Amino acid sequence: MDLTRSPLALPFPDLPAIGGVTLRIARAQYKDWDRCDLTYAEFTEGTAVAGVFTRSACPSSEVEMGREQVQSGRARALIVNAGNSNAFTGYRGREAVEQIMSQVADHLDCRPSEVFVSSTGVIGVPLPLGKARDGVAMAVAATPCSWQDAAKTIATTDTFAKGAGASAMVAGKRVELAAIIKGSGMIAPDMATMLGYIFTDAAIDPAFLQQLLSASNQQTFSCITVDSDTSTSDTVLAFATGHAGNARLTSFDDPGADAFAAALHDVCRQLAHLVVRDGEGAQKFIEIRVNGALSDESAHRIALSIANSPLVKTAIAGEDANWGRVVMAVGKAGEPADRDKLSIGFGGIWAARNGQPVADYDEAPVAAHLQGQEIAIEVDIGLGIGSAAVWTCDLTHGYIDINADYRS
Amino acid sequence: MDLTRSPLALPFPDLPAIGGVTLRIARAQYKDWDRCDLTYAEFTEGTAVAGVFTRSACPSSEVEMGREQVQSGRARALIVNAGNSNAFTGYRGREAVEQIMSQVADHLDCRPSEVFVSSTGVIGVPLPLGKARDGVAMAVAATPCSWQDAAKTIATTDTFAKGAGASAMVAGKRVELAAIIKGSGMIAPDMATMLGYIFTDAAIDPAFLQQLLSASNQQTFSCITVDSDTSTSDTVLAFATGHAGNARLTSFDDPGADAFAAALHDVCRQLAHLVVRDGEGAQKFIEIRVNGALSDESAHRIALSIANSPLVKTAIAGEDANWGRVVMAVGKAGEPADRDKLSIGFGGIWAARNGQPVADYDEAPVAAHLQGQEIAIEVDIGLGIGSAAVWTCDLTHGYIDINADYRS
Repeated sequence: MDLTRSPLALPFPDLPAIGGVTLRIARAQYKDWDRCDLTYAEFTEGTAVAGVFTRSACPSSEVEMGREQVQSGRARALIVNAGNSNAFTGYRGREAVEQIMSQVADHLDCRPSEVFVSSTGVIGVPLPLGKARDGVAMAVAATPCSWQDAAKTIATTDTFAKGAGASAMVAGKRVELAAIIKGSGMIAPDMATMLGYIFTDAAIDPAFLQQLLSASNQQTFSCITVDSDTSTSDTVLAFATGHAGNARLTSFDDPGADAFAAALHDVCRQLAHLVVRDGEGAQKFIEIRVNGALSDESAHRIALSIANSPLVKTAIAGEDANWGRVVMAVGKAGEPADRDKLSIGFGGIWAARNGQPVADYDEAPVAAHLQGQEIAIEVDIGLGIGSAAVWTCDLTHGYIDINADYRS
Repeated sequence: MDLTRSPLALPFPDLPAIGGVTLRIARAQYKDWDRCDLTYAEFTEGTAVAGVFTRSACPSSEVEMGREQVQSGRARALIVNAGNSNAFTGYRGREAVEQIMSQVADHLDCRPSEVFVSSTGVIGVPLPLGKARDGVAMAVAATPCSWQDAAKTIATTDTFAKGAGASAMVAGKRVELAAIIKGSGMIAPDMATMLGYIFTDAAIDPAFLQQLLSASNQQTFSCITVDSDTSTSDTVLAFATGHAGNARLTSFDDPGADAFAAALHDVCRQLAHLVVRDGEGAQKFIEIRVNGALSDESAHRIALSIANSPLVKTAIAGEDANWGRVVMAVGKAGEPADRDKLSIGFGGIWAARNGQPVADYDEAPVAAHLQGQEIAIEVDIGLGIGSAAVWTCDLTHGYIDINADYRS
């Protein structure tokens, strides 16, 4: 099928080179297509790694192995296969991942466990060993490529290439972060899975990098939803080469740790928003902010209940300030709420306060807000000080087109 | 908007008169429409009542009061308002319900707490007191009507009138059950809420009736989903007049209690399925059976995760045996599962066994099954003996049409 560029797409940013990171791409021909589909990132010795993975109880072999590999904290290479997710393929899936790890480890003279592998694409078909072997051989010998080329190569049904960057001053040294991500539905065989990679030249202890990545994940990647579905392969990895020459960061007590944490968080937020902006069929980017819940966790669950409600998402698609559907989504979240303390607004204007429609409610500015591409829904539960924000997109005919009308 | 009759509609069944129950309808004109919209059911003295209600934390006044009223176990009347849900209307909503209860209680010379009220329709607009008063006055004076007339009058955006019946022999006496229900989305302002009413001439203790209704609810109304959204008003009430003259049922030790329980369960199942058959945009009725989970509760949660997955529902709409999406939905359910023990089938044919595609999988009979209107998805988790079944419909352009393209 012909996927048109999302109306919410952003241009690919200028990203700096990251010392110690070399990117290469190749054509493994995992599908019968005219494009590169294998990405190889090589890191200098001493590179730290951290990762967060899908919570699915049925993850791919890549995820199972990646979870083990990040324990050591060290990485020398990353391979990303596009066109075949290698998920639900039993022992043969694991065999393919092990082959790639060995092949790259032989090339770099490192341990196989320092080679990270991700795959995205069709489910239930083992990654073909021959294509993987030839693809890796071509990739390691290829000319280095740009961030944008790598972002295009990890993509599957994405409608635009996604990248993000940031920098921070760490005790007098400037450190750079550059990142790429792919994903447009939470998952679909032949379609999308969220795979994100962050690269930095900062010197940082892997345990501290993991702490920062896990914390940012809670407020970024874990706060986006396109269709409430969760991939078997979702992965975000952060690699830190140390080439910036800063004094190694080991905890928040180190000078510049806050600045680096802020930059990493900013990159994670940018990446997460880019995935929503390429949500299947998305016409509008929606931010949902919940305040006044009994705890931040409670606010997060209420916000996700709203973000995942098909009735809320179709109302936004229809540019309808349908706060009754938001009430419904709050009520079904399974969290403490009191109908008569609930307030709901759109674009900064309350439509309902304390459980009743606002008496002199002027729908005109709300209607104008809903005609835009960036929608804000605000909810005040009125019970406590817990707050959260999540991001999603609307539910449109485009989603049905992509997922029902065209057979995978 | 013009709602066309669901392709999954069933004809209204022949239902017997239930001794002790009289149905009447009237035009309260809650909306500017040419139809009856107020239903009045009158019960003879001594009628037992039981009820199950939405778990929403933001329910309507009708639900809050109904929950209290069923405690007494006695009912003399039911009023159902269509066109205005009276939800999210603060103290004025409660005022309207209390007015109706008093008015009917005066007419019947009973306690107001013996008068049950339900409302369905637009959210956030208090039920107009004058229209309710005039409507009730007309209804109590009207000529008795049929089951089908009552089923039409409680409906809002339903595309067909829904009724179900059953009978049972209780210790030599034949008892009858007749029931009506309305609902086509889990909720939507101006649209649907599930309201179901079961009437029987059996003599039964209210506590035992509640026990049976609650048990059946767990396996019927709690096992259907159209869009994962939960109404602020969902209500099912059962009224038992005792006119059949059977020895009063008080527990499963009484002769005929099993037969009555089976008949009640059958009616609940029929009603629940009818709501799915009128799901917004539904083209296919889907049964999802999960076996081999660690517990029945775990199986139920996995089944609902599949039933609520937009990617599974769009795959069925597209007649695509996309078992990879079922794997995904099992994985995200948050329940114990093992990728390599998982089996998935459609219409009685396994597509994947023990975590891998079936080697000699013949897609032709599966494709034929998916072209039908009644779809079966079978999942074996392979871990235990927990099982569950849930029912849903596919996700189509019709759902988007109803909920996004047309403003409420």
